Amino acid sequence: MANVSELRQDIVTGTWAVIATGRAKRPDDFKTKKRAVIENEKDCPFCHPGKDDKRKPTLVYKDLKGEWSLMAMPNKYPAFDSSTRLNRRENGPFSVVDGVGFHEVIITRNHNLSIAQMKTNQVLEIINAYQERYLGLMNRRFINYISIFHNHGREAGASVSHPHSQLVAMPVIDPDVWRSLNGSADYWQKNKRCVHCVMIEWEKESAERVIFENEEFIALCPFVSRAAFEVRVYPKFHASYFERINQINKTKLAEALRAALIKIDKGLSGPAYNFFLHTTPCDGKDYSHYHWHFEILPKTSIWAGFELGTGIEISTIEPEKAAEFLKQQKV
Amino acid sequence: MANVSELRQDIVTGTWAVIATGRAKRPDDFKTKKRAVIENEKDCPFCHPGKDDKRKPTLVYKDLKGEWSLMAMPNKYPAFDSSTRLNRRENGPFSVVDGVGFHEVIITRNHNLSIAQMKTNQVLEIINAYQERYLGLMNRRFINYISIFHNHGREAGASVSHPHSQLVAMPVIDPDVWRSLNGSADYWQKNKRCVHCVMIEWEKESAERVIFENEEFIALCPFVSRAAFEVRVYPKFHASYFERINQINKTKLAEALRAALIKIDKGLSGPAYNFFLHTTPCDGKDYSHYHWHFEILPKTSIWAGFELGTGIEISTIEPEKAAEFLKQQKV
Repeated sequence: MANVSELRQDIVTGTWAVIATGRAKRPDDFKTKKRAVIENEKDCPFCHPGKDDKRKPTLVYKDLKGEWSLMAMPNKYPAFDSSTRLNRRENGPFSVVDGVGFHEVIITRNHNLSIAQMKTNQVLEIINAYQERYLGLMNRRFINYISIFHNHGREAGASVSHPHSQLVAMPVIDPDVWRSLNGSADYWQKNKRCVHCVMIEWEKESAERVIFENEEFIALCPFVSRAAFEVRVYPKFHASYFERINQINKTKLAEALRAALIKIDKGLSGPAYNFFLHTTPCDGKDYSHYHWHFEILPKTSIWAGFELGTGIEISTIEPEKAAEFLKQQKV
Repeated sequence: MANVSELRQDIVTGTWAVIATGRAKRPDDFKTKKRAVIENEKDCPFCHPGKDDKRKPTLVYKDLKGEWSLMAMPNKYPAFDSSTRLNRRENGPFSVVDGVGFHEVIITRNHNLSIAQMKTNQVLEIINAYQERYLGLMNRRFINYISIFHNHGREAGASVSHPHSQLVAMPVIDPDVWRSLNGSADYWQKNKRCVHCVMIEWEKESAERVIFENEEFIALCPFVSRAAFEVRVYPKFHASYFERINQINKTKLAEALRAALIKIDKGLSGPAYNFFLHTTPCDGKDYSHYHWHFEILPKTSIWAGFELGTGIEISTIEPEKAAEFLKQQKV
């Protein structure tokens, strides 16, 4: 139990923070200015996952030769741990729960092949894994929200260069997520329409910020971009629950996500980036007003004192110009 | 007018973003992976501020020899501009206003002397300038919120190494700030007490996270830290409006802020950091429930896909251990 992280809730903002103990460092560890990134294939923990410990994969996909092509497994340094319970308690004026949950890595086999370099069927395999692990964890005890994300490059916080995504299944939902859910619910109640559908329709008409489109998906630079060259990938049909996506649409999503990442990769000469899924909580409530999507944030700037202090982000290029540029990049 | 930035409001979250045009870059400018930082004294725009253009200082403090020791002046690449008006308008389903406001830099003279290296009376001079410029701008037309912040080091987003703070006076208040204000107002209404005062009292009793204290100010690692080694500096007396601070308390604040920065600087071997003031809006409403303070965030980690996607931040050291370590660092 000594290794279980704590979730602490801010008394003023309601925001949660993970206070890691299992992956906790000593004060002196923070003196190193350059973050260590494992880049070498020889030292790579994802080329032979679980070799040196007792972790078992939670998912294995194989190729035609019977070799593994994708593997999901528990994170070696999990921020959340399934061996505990919620153990809700008070500490002075603050609320605390144990970091109960799941933290998995989803690894594709090739050490050097980033998503932007993959074929559509390889990206499809990743999306299949996202869905399968989501479905596998969403009904587990204490799990109310699942976050799926991918960090690419040192500046985006990837500590291992071998391409991998992560999935965190956890008990709490942060006010940041509630804000989006509430905004979507409010709009639905007032206008009897999905706010994302309205926005997508307007974007399709104006076409100024659209960088890729197929039958079912659209990739665009949002009108209110939080960073230069931000891209979002939306299903064009109203869809609230990512985990219910069907096989045909998964292929279309793979195509759109791949196209967006290629355009960012080519246009900005291989920048670091983060992308993540925004979908509904899995707490059993009705969120049919919501519209799931992926958000891609290239690491084109640093959020400094202004952004941290005010919550307002500065995009140093107009989304319209960013989109025009990304649109030109060949897929 | 072509150079005025836009403030665009997200239709789902209500969050604002600055879409810069005046400081906008061309797409190709984002290819450079390493951000250029002006470090050389010879090229430094802050050693001879305003020399090459027509900007006039908004504040000058002089030393006993009559040489300038601190100067405030308009930012050369302002994110906000006072030459425009609000010009509120709709663009499709979105709300847009012009980036009307003020964006100033507050520069201390010595190119190499960071705040952690200054004497208390030099830090006091900076705090005097914060207050004086705040008072000078808070009643200007369209100004509802003033953010004061300081970026130190490349990793914290400083584009010029010469020590400087920034002040942005603007028309909008972001939901991130409203969340804190509302949290504070709710607590006041329910408990007839200031939530920050309650928290400070509890922290003083437990003493686990306090790193510095004088008669009027306290510096501590917050129980819910958003990053490793986060430190906040609070007045121990209830105070809602930073701009009303008196001369004695400014000296005490200078002492506490300086102590916190020295401890971070020494303990973590000169890390990059951001700090900012959180105080009440200047929109003329009553915020007497709020309690102003400074937040210092050392750049000890990168907010990656999990933090960006969920709003939950991970601190890889317990605030208790961080505080124990910082407490030991001599001022």
